[in-house]
Amino acid sequence: MTQNIYDDEAFFAGYSRLPRSVAGLDGAPEWPALRALLPPLGGRRVLDLGCGYGWFCRWARAQGAGSVLGVDVSERMLARARAETDDAAITYVRADLERFTAAPGAFDLAYSALAFHYLENLAGLLAGVRAALVPGGALVFSAEHPIYTAPAHPGWSAGAAGRSTWPVDGYLDEGPRSTDWLAKGVIKQHRTIGTYIDLLLRAGFAIAHVNEWGPSPEQVAAHPEWANERERPMFVLVACLAQ
Amino acid sequence: MTQNIYDDEAFFAGYSRLPRSVAGLDGAPEWPALRALLPPLGGRRVLDLGCGYGWFCRWARAQGAGSVLGVDVSERMLARARAETDDAAITYVRADLERFTAAPGAFDLAYSALAFHYLENLAGLLAGVRAALVPGGALVFSAEHPIYTAPAHPGWSAGAAGRSTWPVDGYLDEGPRSTDWLAKGVIKQHRTIGTYIDLLLRAGFAIAHVNEWGPSPEQVAAHPEWANERERPMFVLVACLAQ
Repeated sequence: MTQNIYDDEAFFAGYSRLPRSVAGLDGAPEWPALRALLPPLGGRRVLDLGCGYGWFCRWARAQGAGSVLGVDVSERMLARARAETDDAAITYVRADLERFTAAPGAFDLAYSALAFHYLENLAGLLAGVRAALVPGGALVFSAEHPIYTAPAHPGWSAGAAGRSTWPVDGYLDEGPRSTDWLAKGVIKQHRTIGTYIDLLLRAGFAIAHVNEWGPSPEQVAAHPEWANERERPMFVLVACLAQ
Repeated sequence: MTQNIYDDEAFFAGYSRLPRSVAGLDGAPEWPALRALLPPLGGRRVLDLGCGYGWFCRWARAQGAGSVLGVDVSERMLARARAETDDAAITYVRADLERFTAAPGAFDLAYSALAFHYLENLAGLLAGVRAALVPGGALVFSAEHPIYTAPAHPGWSAGAAGRSTWPVDGYLDEGPRSTDWLAKGVIKQHRTIGTYIDLLLRAGFAIAHVNEWGPSPEQVAAHPEWANERERPMFVLVACLAQ
């Protein structure tokens, strides 16, 4: 079973102070690119896997989604999501994503932001999501990029002429990585992009878009401190369609 | 127009001494993985883009391909290909790949090994290949992986505990890279995997497989000097289908 780090007190305290926790979707620099992959939401039945505080669930409803189910393993995050939501068409459920199942064709869109890289059994989740989507339904998700998750000791190094470089090792050795991000011993699952794509294809999805995300030049102009993020992608954003 | 480095005397002299030039397909460690992506060749009309010495063309015929067209921009390589081929069903043509066109549906399989990362106008080539394939026909290719092509100064660094790491920079800044590999000023085009996938989708292909290649543990056991190649992928292997 996947580690439930979001219910770790120190991790949760740190996470709740991140820009994306304070400012919501607009606090996440990759959000405009991820949003651009979404189909029109009017009247759609939406599933949010790893819904956290429910920011996306509420945004989807504001875009006209007919109903939204937010699923998360963290009690703490769901408690805040429920406290901040006043909408009978949004439901929050606590569940281990790896064991998520729903009625066949119950959803038109599945969405997940930065949750898949925590899951050991991603194949199991994808099979469940595929079954829960109508044919032609979309899965749109973000995950930490394998260049970001691969290294045994992730971090920037000084390259030639003071340029930042991101040393990569272990890229082809998939599996758990323990990092000290917000708390000690946070376990992420390192997978190559090739493996993400193969898992999606095997689950019955067709690939529609793959975006190795870094800030746009315009975003770097507005936030010069993000310039390093163009040296290597931090996230991978994927859109695919249930066949 | 793409640089024709293979007709540079120093480059060609160096290239002709590489294991893959001396031993053919079996001298390329990624060949077993690339071969595994190929459909059955019996009776098929095969196109080899960047055919070089014609190793793949002759192998495809030995597998039962009905006919093979090998295309390359290098006079020197085609001269050797023709000298080493005695098969009326194999034709070699000199052409700039970016301007390649053929009759619609003229081929069942298009193949390309380590040529696409030299092309400036890959979109143009893919449009031509898509048109030249029958619907359902396959395109199988290898290219240098963007982790390998991205850095301004590619090379290994010593990481913690003597482990080799591959410093990445410039990953999101696509475009030409000048390297000194076999000759000075060899120009490659750096593209992300996301861009490769998007170009394929836009040209009318469905993604069937993406393999970020490194040697298998068995290959490393047989060739311990390849161990570093598991730290970061050197090649990307892709199979896709004309829609």
